[in-house]
Amino acid sequence: MSRIQFQQVVVPPGVIDLGVGQPANALLPLELLRRAAEQRFAGPSAELLQYGAEWGDGHLRLALGAYLSEAYGCSVEAEHLFITNGNSQALDLLCTVLSRPGDVVVVEEPTYFLALTILRDHGLEVRGVAVDADGLDVDELDQVLDELAAAGRRVAFVYTIPAFQNPTGATMSAERRERLCSVSRAHDVIVVADEVYHLLRYDDGAATPSPAPMSAHVTNGAVVSIGTFSKILAPGLRLGWAHGPLALLERMAASGLIESGGGLNPVPGALVAAILEEGWQAEHLAFLRQTYARRVAIMTDALREHLPDDVAFDVPGGGYFFWLRLPDRLDAVTARARAQREGVDVRDGPLFSSGGGQRDRLRLSFAYYDDDELAQGVARLGRALRDR
Amino acid sequence: MSRIQFQQVVVPPGVIDLGVGQPANALLPLELLRRAAEQRFAGPSAELLQYGAEWGDGHLRLALGAYLSEAYGCSVEAEHLFITNGNSQALDLLCTVLSRPGDVVVVEEPTYFLALTILRDHGLEVRGVAVDADGLDVDELDQVLDELAAAGRRVAFVYTIPAFQNPTGATMSAERRERLCSVSRAHDVIVVADEVYHLLRYDDGAATPSPAPMSAHVTNGAVVSIGTFSKILAPGLRLGWAHGPLALLERMAASGLIESGGGLNPVPGALVAAILEEGWQAEHLAFLRQTYARRVAIMTDALREHLPDDVAFDVPGGGYFFWLRLPDRLDAVTARARAQREGVDVRDGPLFSSGGGQRDRLRLSFAYYDDDELAQGVARLGRALRDR
Repeated sequence: MSRIQFQQVVVPPGVIDLGVGQPANALLPLELLRRAAEQRFAGPSAELLQYGAEWGDGHLRLALGAYLSEAYGCSVEAEHLFITNGNSQALDLLCTVLSRPGDVVVVEEPTYFLALTILRDHGLEVRGVAVDADGLDVDELDQVLDELAAAGRRVAFVYTIPAFQNPTGATMSAERRERLCSVSRAHDVIVVADEVYHLLRYDDGAATPSPAPMSAHVTNGAVVSIGTFSKILAPGLRLGWAHGPLALLERMAASGLIESGGGLNPVPGALVAAILEEGWQAEHLAFLRQTYARRVAIMTDALREHLPDDVAFDVPGGGYFFWLRLPDRLDAVTARARAQREGVDVRDGPLFSSGGGQRDRLRLSFAYYDDDELAQGVARLGRALRDR
Repeated sequence: MSRIQFQQVVVPPGVIDLGVGQPANALLPLELLRRAAEQRFAGPSAELLQYGAEWGDGHLRLALGAYLSEAYGCSVEAEHLFITNGNSQALDLLCTVLSRPGDVVVVEEPTYFLALTILRDHGLEVRGVAVDADGLDVDELDQVLDELAAAGRRVAFVYTIPAFQNPTGATMSAERRERLCSVSRAHDVIVVADEVYHLLRYDDGAATPSPAPMSAHVTNGAVVSIGTFSKILAPGLRLGWAHGPLALLERMAASGLIESGGGLNPVPGALVAAILEEGWQAEHLAFLRQTYARRVAIMTDALREHLPDDVAFDVPGGGYFFWLRLPDRLDAVTARARAQREGVDVRDGPLFSSGGGQRDRLRLSFAYYDDDELAQGVARLGRALRDR
């Protein structure tokens, strides 16, 4: 029965795996689901068990439009929302409707490594463009799009994680976002903005206000914003949304997957519609932001205490990750192996690179462990990275 | 708000749409879901809200293996089950791992028309092989595979609906099933058997026993059987399974969609695991078989009463459909238009054809309407098809 597993991630006993980029079970809103199920499974209509409307259940889209308009601070109309099975499936479906094998997708360097596997499954080539403290380098993007056009290559889309990026934690500045829209329009290439972490902001007191999400730019026609309940509610719901131009959402709805199976995930969708309508999502997000803000503070203190002085990092203003920079004496893959021997795991930079780079980087997440485990994990990492 | 819909299928008022191939809301087991949710959302563990194990939740796979072994009458090991979002998504994922654009998929002629849209999305060409009263014509398949090999074409897989086929209602004989396995092994081409209707059998008293499902042939390595809770429980669950060779399931689990998003649909999966463990699925299936058996009888009587004598049909032994044969004087598309003018809708044969054929056929479903509506719909159809 070795192949029968009960969860995706199994951490070996005794190990603190700071690489795990998912919420702890203790943060998952089981009680909200219980209350939502009590409402929605009471009847009398069994319509939520039927094949769903192609764009997603109308009740969910209406409640989500109202919620996002408030939470994002920009107008998100229900008509421009298409319900997905989460951002991985959204990306998969966008590949189906936007790409042909052999096309190029421009991604950030570094980027979320599992997105690269989805692109590979569609026979797509990947071209990386650097990310700095202000997010994607849009000048470099412009140049790369010129080069690709000159080489006769078709670009399916640009994939970016604009806020609290995975893995760097960087957030694209408002100015860059404007310029990204101009560049994508000029090249007639759509931007797929993975806004998974946008609402997970912990630095409300910071000097710079958070830039508006890319959702605010959807109406210009060159952006589709994908979001998910995985990080703000629960990954197991497999529920998310695409906020985009109608013509694109129509193509998604006309895919064989949707025409045949109906809209995505009507049952979790009905439960989440209740959670949104009752205002429980806003309460849960406030709880998560408070929890993660505390963890960022604890991890920052621990890193300052335990890391050797030649290991550098920025304090993230949101999201799930710290992105450490190692000194020349340490290679990321070797450093990770040393960490594992101390009973702590991390993710090495090259995992996030489409070109074998990022060898001076380690990614740490603070989402999965509680305060004490985070401090203990960082203490172990400190020992592992010390010069010897 | 015209784009905000609450269900996939909206039938115009006053119309009886005998084309709708989905269960009526009244047959959907809302009370079972309510009881399952009461169990699974009570805690203490919130693990069902976490990213799921890649192959699907272990509890669900174990309960499903036990259920299918009993219901199918052949051994279905949990280790050989991979949880899907239903058969449409299973087919989409099988295309991802088994095909390259430009490959050929051999399908039945006629076949489930929305499967063709999924294949098109993957850039696949379709080649039809005839279906007769004993199912797929395996001799023709053998010949077609020879031809394709001679032409240097790569065949991704053979797609068949072996029991109570959509749209013909035909069931492949046991002998043909054996031969299908030999032929597919000889050509080194895998068979994707869509066994969506296998358990929906209504003719237990029939002279010929039901052949074993293609699931019984999985161990020979040339078959993957896909099944779904859409027809035996509820479509809105978006939950199904692939029963196949380990090497194939491993490739599915290694796809970007699964690696990134985790196993498919952990929340509906946890609810259905409870329904299986409690024995409620078996009870619900017995209820469905009884209900549909009655409807087949009612529809048979009504068709005999109202159809002109030159319209022929077989009484289906299971599944969802009657497949009428029209006389020369009637073309299917014209006949459908005439039916619509009488306030009844059907699906015309060419919809199910990959080559513009089946112009003498109409498909009627008895799943969506209750007894009285079925009789009334058939009376209207009778008027529409009468010579004039």
